[in-house]
Amino acid sequence: MLIECIPNVSEGRRADVVAAIADAIRGVPGIRLLDFSSDASHNRSVFTFAGDRAGVAQAVLAMFERAIPAIDLRAHRGEHPRLGAVDVVPLVPIEGVTMAECVALAKEVGAAIAERFQIPVYLYEEASTNPARKNLEDIRRGEFEGLASKMTTPGWAPDFGPTAPHERAGATVVGARMPLIAYNINLATDRLDVAKKIAAGIRHSGGGFRFVKAAGFKLDDRGIVQVSMNLTNYEKTPIFRVFEVVKHEAARYGVQVLESEIVGLVPSAALHAAAEYYLQIEGFTPDQVLENKLRRS
Amino acid sequence: MLIECIPNVSEGRRADVVAAIADAIRGVPGIRLLDFSSDASHNRSVFTFAGDRAGVAQAVLAMFERAIPAIDLRAHRGEHPRLGAVDVVPLVPIEGVTMAECVALAKEVGAAIAERFQIPVYLYEEASTNPARKNLEDIRRGEFEGLASKMTTPGWAPDFGPTAPHERAGATVVGARMPLIAYNINLATDRLDVAKKIAAGIRHSGGGFRFVKAAGFKLDDRGIVQVSMNLTNYEKTPIFRVFEVVKHEAARYGVQVLESEIVGLVPSAALHAAAEYYLQIEGFTPDQVLENKLRRS
Repeated sequence: MLIECIPNVSEGRRADVVAAIADAIRGVPGIRLLDFSSDASHNRSVFTFAGDRAGVAQAVLAMFERAIPAIDLRAHRGEHPRLGAVDVVPLVPIEGVTMAECVALAKEVGAAIAERFQIPVYLYEEASTNPARKNLEDIRRGEFEGLASKMTTPGWAPDFGPTAPHERAGATVVGARMPLIAYNINLATDRLDVAKKIAAGIRHSGGGFRFVKAAGFKLDDRGIVQVSMNLTNYEKTPIFRVFEVVKHEAARYGVQVLESEIVGLVPSAALHAAAEYYLQIEGFTPDQVLENKLRRS
Repeated sequence: MLIECIPNVSEGRRADVVAAIADAIRGVPGIRLLDFSSDASHNRSVFTFAGDRAGVAQAVLAMFERAIPAIDLRAHRGEHPRLGAVDVVPLVPIEGVTMAECVALAKEVGAAIAERFQIPVYLYEEASTNPARKNLEDIRRGEFEGLASKMTTPGWAPDFGPTAPHERAGATVVGARMPLIAYNINLATDRLDVAKKIAAGIRHSGGGFRFVKAAGFKLDDRGIVQVSMNLTNYEKTPIFRVFEVVKHEAARYGVQVLESEIVGLVPSAALHAAAEYYLQIEGFTPDQVLENKLRRS
């Protein structure tokens, strides 16, 4: 079983604090810390680690153990919005684990954080217990500075823990979600309006696909434009369908797709689905993938 | 590191002998026996197991240890051609291992078989030391019954071991090869001639792709025809190129591709390559596959 956890911590300037948190995660048996990076202007660090259910739960608590004494949000400034010292803890099902199990783990971990550190916890995305508190942006609106007042508003009692913010650490958002795919399609034109129109048409907020966020950009150094996307659920809004629609929309303006690119990581199954679609493979199951078979035997 | 081994043993009728060989393979630490199946009319069993370099070498020798005393080819009858009691031992690189390393392992294992059991060993496919002895069919021609005479012919001294057959066990063929993909394309027509013409055009023996074996069949129960293929090196002759050419050739006869199917297992990378091709993904590396990254960290 493999669960990925990508916690965001509100400290991106003091390298010693970030390193100590990384060490705490690394120190948990069975946990692999895949990556961590800090942004000084955001004053924020993102850690990526993976392991099984028990390991991930233990690593999250170990991270809090280090972060909470070290970070005081009352003195924290940075460009990125934040609600807590440990701001958000997303759990992502990777292999041999269902979304339902990740939701259960999110609730378990959320309850443990609240109990051990006396920090209010909100559940978000798939773990959300309230449609108004599904999106991270909605929960985070008002930020740490507005949290005390927000928590007294009807509908904003936390899922776990005290009904007022932790003095230094605010609140934490814990949840489960699908892996994100950062996917860009470059168009063989310098017409920014074409990229912007296509982005507006395919993104959810514009009436497009349910699990697409998109924007149009100019790549000045190459003299071309890009439809830049986040695909937030590749099972329900698959890459191939988005690609085909962008290609089709571009043709409407006499523009061709030059290439696409995947930024960072992509789940193997998202690529398999594209192969299955284009090769018109019938009756295909994940058990037919050699590596899956080898690992599950 | 993961190497797959798919030995073919000349016994498909005595279930106790087959079970004992399976147990011997299973008994090697770190080895996973993924599958084994016997065919009584062929009088032959195929085992599939995987593990690292040392484990695979040990499992091959453990298999010989059981098979050699139990099988006497002088009394063996069956439809499938064979040269040895353990007929052929292919090694296939799966993950974290190169073809060159599998070739080296084939030579090491071949030498060990020859020394320990006094059985002549021929190296084939990527491990072959002689172009006339690359294809299994060429090495096996004449079968066990013709082996003693064949071995006295110039060019047929074995790569390892005695220069005459083992009295009961004949000779063994050991080598390294890419994973095979059994891939069929079904056409929306009942015209067998169309499937046969396409198969003849795309297979290596007909002037087609270097790593394609193909034949045309009728699927009587469905009233359609099939181009049935073995892709013997998906890196050099990728699935997508074969699919696109079949589709194009079919259109020449006014016929459409109905669907395709993968029979049995397919390496993940073969599907990734198809996704990369159709989605026009530039600059993609295997490290971007989430599962690869997680396993290699």
